Amino acid sequence: FERKQFKSLKELLSTMEPADIAEVLAEKAPAERVFLFRLLPKDIAIEVFEFLEGAEREELLGSFTDTEVAAIIEEMSDDDRTALFDELPAKTVKKLLAHLSPEERKLANALLNYQADSAGRIMTPEFIDLKETMTASQALARIRATAAKKETIYTSFVVSPERKLKGTVHLEDLILASPDTPVTDFMDGLPVFVTTDTDQEEAAKTMSKYDLQTIPVVDRESRLVGILTFDDILDIVQEEATEDFERMAGISPVDESYLDAGIMTLTRKRLTWLLVCIVTQLFSSFILERYSFVLESVVALAFFIPLLIGTGGNTGTQAATLVIRGFTVGEIVREDLFRVISKEIVSGFLLGISLAVLASIRAWTMGTGYGVALTVAASVVGVVMLGNLVGAFLPFAAKKLNIDPAVMSGPFITTVVDILGLLLYFEVARRVLVLG
Amino acid sequence: FERKQFKSLKELLSTMEPADIAEVLAEKAPAERVFLFRLLPKDIAIEVFEFLEGAEREELLGSFTDTEVAAIIEEMSDDDRTALFDELPAKTVKKLLAHLSPEERKLANALLNYQADSAGRIMTPEFIDLKETMTASQALARIRATAAKKETIYTSFVVSPERKLKGTVHLEDLILASPDTPVTDFMDGLPVFVTTDTDQEEAAKTMSKYDLQTIPVVDRESRLVGILTFDDILDIVQEEATEDFERMAGISPVDESYLDAGIMTLTRKRLTWLLVCIVTQLFSSFILERYSFVLESVVALAFFIPLLIGTGGNTGTQAATLVIRGFTVGEIVREDLFRVISKEIVSGFLLGISLAVLASIRAWTMGTGYGVALTVAASVVGVVMLGNLVGAFLPFAAKKLNIDPAVMSGPFITTVVDILGLLLYFEVARRVLVLG
Repeated sequence: FERKQFKSLKELLSTMEPADIAEVLAEKAPAERVFLFRLLPKDIAIEVFEFLEGAEREELLGSFTDTEVAAIIEEMSDDDRTALFDELPAKTVKKLLAHLSPEERKLANALLNYQADSAGRIMTPEFIDLKETMTASQALARIRATAAKKETIYTSFVVSPERKLKGTVHLEDLILASPDTPVTDFMDGLPVFVTTDTDQEEAAKTMSKYDLQTIPVVDRESRLVGILTFDDILDIVQEEATEDFERMAGISPVDESYLDAGIMTLTRKRLTWLLVCIVTQLFSSFILERYSFVLESVVALAFFIPLLIGTGGNTGTQAATLVIRGFTVGEIVREDLFRVISKEIVSGFLLGISLAVLASIRAWTMGTGYGVALTVAASVVGVVMLGNLVGAFLPFAAKKLNIDPAVMSGPFITTVVDILGLLLYFEVARRVLVLG
Repeated sequence: FERKQFKSLKELLSTMEPADIAEVLAEKAPAERVFLFRLLPKDIAIEVFEFLEGAEREELLGSFTDTEVAAIIEEMSDDDRTALFDELPAKTVKKLLAHLSPEERKLANALLNYQADSAGRIMTPEFIDLKETMTASQALARIRATAAKKETIYTSFVVSPERKLKGTVHLEDLILASPDTPVTDFMDGLPVFVTTDTDQEEAAKTMSKYDLQTIPVVDRESRLVGILTFDDILDIVQEEATEDFERMAGISPVDESYLDAGIMTLTRKRLTWLLVCIVTQLFSSFILERYSFVLESVVALAFFIPLLIGTGGNTGTQAATLVIRGFTVGEIVREDLFRVISKEIVSGFLLGISLAVLASIRAWTMGTGYGVALTVAASVVGVVMLGNLVGAFLPFAAKKLNIDPAVMSGPFITTVVDILGLLLYFEVARRVLVLG
């Protein structure tokens, strides 16, 4: 690089948004990434660092001197730092904690002691606290004085001398109030809050339900210890949706992005459910073996096995998806079991009839007799209703057993329906065709 | 009700959050709902109304006099009103529009003319605009004067006399600035924005990427016409995730909640893909018919059909889910095709080997000879790799054809893999067992 190019590169970077710079850096080779990162002014560098992914962060940290590392770690916001520490090996975390000032280290440690996926883990203690005795102008003075180090100034929190949460104050109301009004006059005295133990998904739901941009987090003694802000919950909502998609396809949640994850990791995350399913599927071979006398008499019955179990699996997946998603967004609760099941039975009957018409026309025109056509028709109706029933019921059962309903879906439901569907099909065939 | 009970009921309602009141109302019978709603003070009533679902809103509106309707509609925030009008029949909308003051009607009409799912459709025009010539104290005075009617006061927008967007001002910076500083000194002069045509999902992604609580919306002439706020994007993110879940299970997006949707609606939304799949599945019966001479010689081959196609379908769904979700959260782009495919081929081989061991042990212990065991083992490896390949490739193909990749999943992929898997299985069997 010439000195001039160097300068114009610096200028170019300074006009870009930190999120965009992070994107550019992510695409570069490691050496180039370190070089470009060092060109950034310190305050922007930290913001860019917060936007980078785990692997890139670790690599960048490795390329810095201890003093540089200390500066970056110390300037990061608390929740981003906790997320970073979460991703790094314990040994590295310990080394990094040593770089923090004693006060910062105390905060980081406090955050790290809450259990994974709890509100305590992702909250930031960088909120503005006000006293009950303050007036609007005193409160505004305190906000002005402390704003620079805080996560948000749009909501501040009134606490008692014992640090118990007494109310929330919106900057909006503070600005519109006359200077001498006590804060207790315009604070929200019954604010919605979560506790440090609250699951992060629960916390996100609460914030979404009440349209909150900030929610206070209190400990078991009702003391205010942190806040969650809106960028936290967006991340949570996206993360939880991804986990649900993965679970519904029988994949254990993958922490890294698809392209970053190693092939062995991906394979391992997928293998568990595939093994469960194939072991369960072995039953299907026993069932077919048991009914082989039927198959040997009328080999045409085998022609419809894929169609039949495929259709059952598809309807089961549909029903499960509707119920699981209903649980997630809160539109369905445990008590709705009978409403849901009866809906699925009726809908299964209607779907079954429509699909049976098509399948039995094919069986009929094949010229193997009415018996096979009748068997196929009856079995399609049965298997579709079965798929609906199993697909709707299993998520409720999971909920009852406090298992994530999303686990009860896709591969697992398909497998269960396959096996029950085969039993149904051959039982119907045996009776209709009067065999064995 | 006694007069006293009446009063304490009113008091109870006044301590509750609007979102909670809406929840209580939703559970009541219509008559009771109307009764309770009328007890609410006007300002709270409007907030509660905005939290209610479509069906309840319509019903409540029906129970009011014209003057009452006019008051509610006029007080609703613009984006909520647009959402309400979207849900109602055109005739009702026209009637309701008549209730608005001329100014409000102009706004509502403006919002309604943007296409569905665009930023224009959900934006609110209730933002605070500032002039380039203003100082911090003048800006603050303007915010104080107009705050009551605006959606947010945390971000205001500097516009030129032609109403072109010049920059955004954060209340934070405004409060911390000395009174005489011109707004142009501390405004963000290159703010991130979207246009009225931007798809709402795109707009949500942009806000999420840059951690924005508010984003300006400009028209084709770069004039500032509205803003999106964070509660809008949370709704969009949830809505889009639900749509993706439904599409991935072969369900056309359902607009209502599961319990509100009629059985016929649900059945219709599910039938299309089931029909597509069953018609495609008919091919499987033709394939099996063609290979019936193989089946007749070795009926044991039929025992493994469900296991084989089930496994192929499961791996296909897993691969498709990883790729589709990768597209949605932006971790995978079109150019990654070859990286993804090669990853899936290697991973498919590893998964296939593990699963083939289990399946072939079962085939071997069945005592039908090594030939069947070998056929099953080779076919499991083949079908798992096939499932991975099809599951990873089809979403890319959809993306290329500008179809939502989520459509290429669950039922459809399972069906395609079923058919290709059967062909593979019987071709392998024919060669290994030297038949036909």
